[in-house]
Amino acid sequence: MSSNRPRLLRVALVQEINHGDAATNLAVIEQRVAEAAAAGAQLVLLQELHNGPYFCQHESVDEFDRAEAIPGPSSERLSELAKQHGVVIVGSLFERRAPGLYHNTAVVLERDGRLLARYRKMHIPDDPGFYEKFYFTPGDIGFQPVDTSVGRLGVLVCWDQWYPEGARLMALAGAELLLYPTAIGWDRNDSEDEQQRQRQAWIISQRGHAVANGLPVLSCNRTGFEQAPGSEEGIDFWGSSFVAGPQGEMLAEASVDKPQLLVVDVDMARSEAVRRIWPFLRDRRIDAYDDLLKRYRD
Amino acid sequence: MSSNRPRLLRVALVQEINHGDAATNLAVIEQRVAEAAAAGAQLVLLQELHNGPYFCQHESVDEFDRAEAIPGPSSERLSELAKQHGVVIVGSLFERRAPGLYHNTAVVLERDGRLLARYRKMHIPDDPGFYEKFYFTPGDIGFQPVDTSVGRLGVLVCWDQWYPEGARLMALAGAELLLYPTAIGWDRNDSEDEQQRQRQAWIISQRGHAVANGLPVLSCNRTGFEQAPGSEEGIDFWGSSFVAGPQGEMLAEASVDKPQLLVVDVDMARSEAVRRIWPFLRDRRIDAYDDLLKRYRD
Repeated sequence: MSSNRPRLLRVALVQEINHGDAATNLAVIEQRVAEAAAAGAQLVLLQELHNGPYFCQHESVDEFDRAEAIPGPSSERLSELAKQHGVVIVGSLFERRAPGLYHNTAVVLERDGRLLARYRKMHIPDDPGFYEKFYFTPGDIGFQPVDTSVGRLGVLVCWDQWYPEGARLMALAGAELLLYPTAIGWDRNDSEDEQQRQRQAWIISQRGHAVANGLPVLSCNRTGFEQAPGSEEGIDFWGSSFVAGPQGEMLAEASVDKPQLLVVDVDMARSEAVRRIWPFLRDRRIDAYDDLLKRYRD
Repeated sequence: MSSNRPRLLRVALVQEINHGDAATNLAVIEQRVAEAAAAGAQLVLLQELHNGPYFCQHESVDEFDRAEAIPGPSSERLSELAKQHGVVIVGSLFERRAPGLYHNTAVVLERDGRLLARYRKMHIPDDPGFYEKFYFTPGDIGFQPVDTSVGRLGVLVCWDQWYPEGARLMALAGAELLLYPTAIGWDRNDSEDEQQRQRQAWIISQRGHAVANGLPVLSCNRTGFEQAPGSEEGIDFWGSSFVAGPQGEMLAEASVDKPQLLVVDVDMARSEAVRRIWPFLRDRRIDAYDDLLKRYRD
């Protein structure tokens, strides 16, 4: 390992339950960001669709009322919060781009309050309990990291976390950190074994992106049970928000079932040291990767 | 999880130290394959360059004397062994393709003894102690799985294990298993913390490929210390050969520092069940992956 001088970045992840409507959730977020800033955090990552319940448990046209323009009231409130505390904030909003055209969109607010960029979730899931294809048009602005005062951030969202392609494209564009606002949990009908395999798979997948790209990864997940509208069923969000270093090493991990503000120092200088001993980017066989652009090689 | 009926495949991984020359190492392999077959294994995976020491610790033209044609004496011996025990064998040889043209090549022997296919290592490392670019021409036959009596095998080699691209291309071509003969270990000058981060990163990376592709992964590594020629230094191969299921779950793991025959049942029907709940292949954004074919997005 080379002797690069550490360059510490203090990051905070706000793992929360759903507290109700947007006003209430944003009030809680304001409190948590204040705590994070008081603890010295320079970058705060929020969970996916933090303004309300995970409404994708059912398909209802009324849920589109939750969507907002960006910039709009919520992005502006996050912007003020970023400026007030002098921290970079990565939030996650339901974007109303046009009537009938909506996205699952992450926003990056600079510490001076500027809305620097948005990322529109590229990979959209659709499984029982996660009916996202009904709500979210797949992103059309690609995998573009954003330059901020704390580094070049590769912001992705939830289902993207299963795709090595998204992580790689961010790394190839110079991202220094990967960040995932996310909302994932258990179906209570699954066995305990299956539940633990799922949670571990989710962690492994993202730590794998850290390893493959020599980059730290931040992942902020919901916690708590949310009942599906008109059903006895629901999702047990499994928390477990975490920060991994550029060898995939776990730097900090939040609880499974409790709200938690996770504050941790990430050494931004370690990535280059790690990439010098494991220079994966040097040896990619770009002459032989054409079929990655196919749906299937049949 | 769907109720697919299990379809068990018993696999064996031969984790060994270097016993000296090719004759001696192949004699040990013959013993281990006999044991594996007696234990009911249908597929046997050997470690990287199992015929001798990991000679890439230095650069010497004399080491090319170890290379052989394929088919050649060693592939024929593995072929006889496969036929004798009625098992599929995946071996790893130093291939002499032409004078001055050599590859790090995996071979797949059918249970009737036929040499079905070879895979020439695509990603070639070069780091202190692992001077592979001197010896091995990068593979030119791409990422092609091979159909065998035990399924379609996605055979890759060592340094490939750090590349999500190789695993994905094998999965997209219908591979049902990913297999990695490998030779990786520690530099004794590294701290214990660094050593454990490296070993864990190696495991996480490959379990990550299992998750991303909904496929079991078999990885067979060397164990034991091998001194570099003309040096006090050497590599402590870290063993830890393992088999993971299609959610990245660890099914079996060998010791760090001892030879071990790892025999385990893999349920080949689970992949489709897992892919039904996590249909990652459905949602790949192949319209947005063009830049994966670039060295860097600058």
